[in-house]
Amino acid sequence: MARNKHPEETVNLILDVSYRLFMKKGYEHTSIQDIISHLGGLSKGAIYHHFKSKEEILMAVSDRMTEESNQLLVRIRDCKGMTGREKLKAIFKESINRPVQDEIFTAAPNFHNNPKLLASLLNDTIKEVPPVYITPIIEQGIADGSIQTDYPEQLAELIILVANIWMNPMVFEDTREHAYGKFQVFRQMMQGLGLDIVDEEMLERLQELTSIYQEKK
Amino acid sequence: MARNKHPEETVNLILDVSYRLFMKKGYEHTSIQDIISHLGGLSKGAIYHHFKSKEEILMAVSDRMTEESNQLLVRIRDCKGMTGREKLKAIFKESINRPVQDEIFTAAPNFHNNPKLLASLLNDTIKEVPPVYITPIIEQGIADGSIQTDYPEQLAELIILVANIWMNPMVFEDTREHAYGKFQVFRQMMQGLGLDIVDEEMLERLQELTSIYQEKK
Repeated sequence: MARNKHPEETVNLILDVSYRLFMKKGYEHTSIQDIISHLGGLSKGAIYHHFKSKEEILMAVSDRMTEESNQLLVRIRDCKGMTGREKLKAIFKESINRPVQDEIFTAAPNFHNNPKLLASLLNDTIKEVPPVYITPIIEQGIADGSIQTDYPEQLAELIILVANIWMNPMVFEDTREHAYGKFQVFRQMMQGLGLDIVDEEMLERLQELTSIYQEKK
Repeated sequence: MARNKHPEETVNLILDVSYRLFMKKGYEHTSIQDIISHLGGLSKGAIYHHFKSKEEILMAVSDRMTEESNQLLVRIRDCKGMTGREKLKAIFKESINRPVQDEIFTAAPNFHNNPKLLASLLNDTIKEVPPVYITPIIEQGIADGSIQTDYPEQLAELIILVANIWMNPMVFEDTREHAYGKFQVFRQMMQGLGLDIVDEEMLERLQELTSIYQEKK
């Protein structure tokens, strides 16, 4: 394809191609040259104009992946007329119900073969999502009486670590039965922490996503 | 130093030197040549005789690190005259009380700069420790009535993920106050799951280990 005159489209093109290659071959086994080869007429210089290194491309890919999901989190966090507890439930429900989840689970990265992606996911999961989105919701829940805890920051981290890493079929390749047991234990953990927000519908959707991922492998 | 006539001593020497370099410079920034330079008279051929790649050295370093800790887990798992619940408590207590923990925490690897080490830790943490050591103890607890769960495998994974990854100051660099909140939330999580096994003494020791790590950084 011809070189694009619009820099933001060039960037998106680089990210689309890089994302597919990282997922297919693994970040470590994808070279800048591989990315160039899949970009048609785009030169090495054009890539380096936008990204200094492969690692910078990875970070941009990763940022773009989380951007859409973060928009959902912002909308719920800043919504009026819901208690903190209702917001927490809404976040789980809407996160797993987004149609784009099917697509992400079909693209099926395997984080086992991508230590850098995994480290980046783990870091973002703990350092970004909880403080920016979940802690404020838990603090609202403490204020409105719908959530009880003395440690909102840490509770936010624990919930997100368990939901986004442990229950993520892209990180741990579980059988359908094993995944179901995880969802049940997560539900019990949440109940034990006074957060009875995981319902049957969510458990069924989680099962569905796990199946989509496993079938596409 | 002169080349060692005993292969197992040569291997241990390579692992000692590699461990220190990985911790100091990061796995990615340590070359086989760096390792050779710190081995005195040992030749490149002597290293390759034992390890095919840097990654093989990493795996051996990692295995050796967990070996001692696994001996403790075996001893408690196979001990007679304790309930499953008592064994679970003993594992936490003894794991954090081992004097070697001070040394490990002083060596202070930062997993953030070592994605491969982090991925390996995460994998071992979930794929090895729970099925081999923790699940059998929980199953014993179900049988003797001291633990209630329908999902022993998943409960084992959750506990180990939270204790060994989330609460590990080498993975997440927390302030002392933040770490304390994590320990409290862990305690609540365990209580909520019917496992009231974390006591004040353990919380104090966890605080101590966090301080040792932070002071040596």
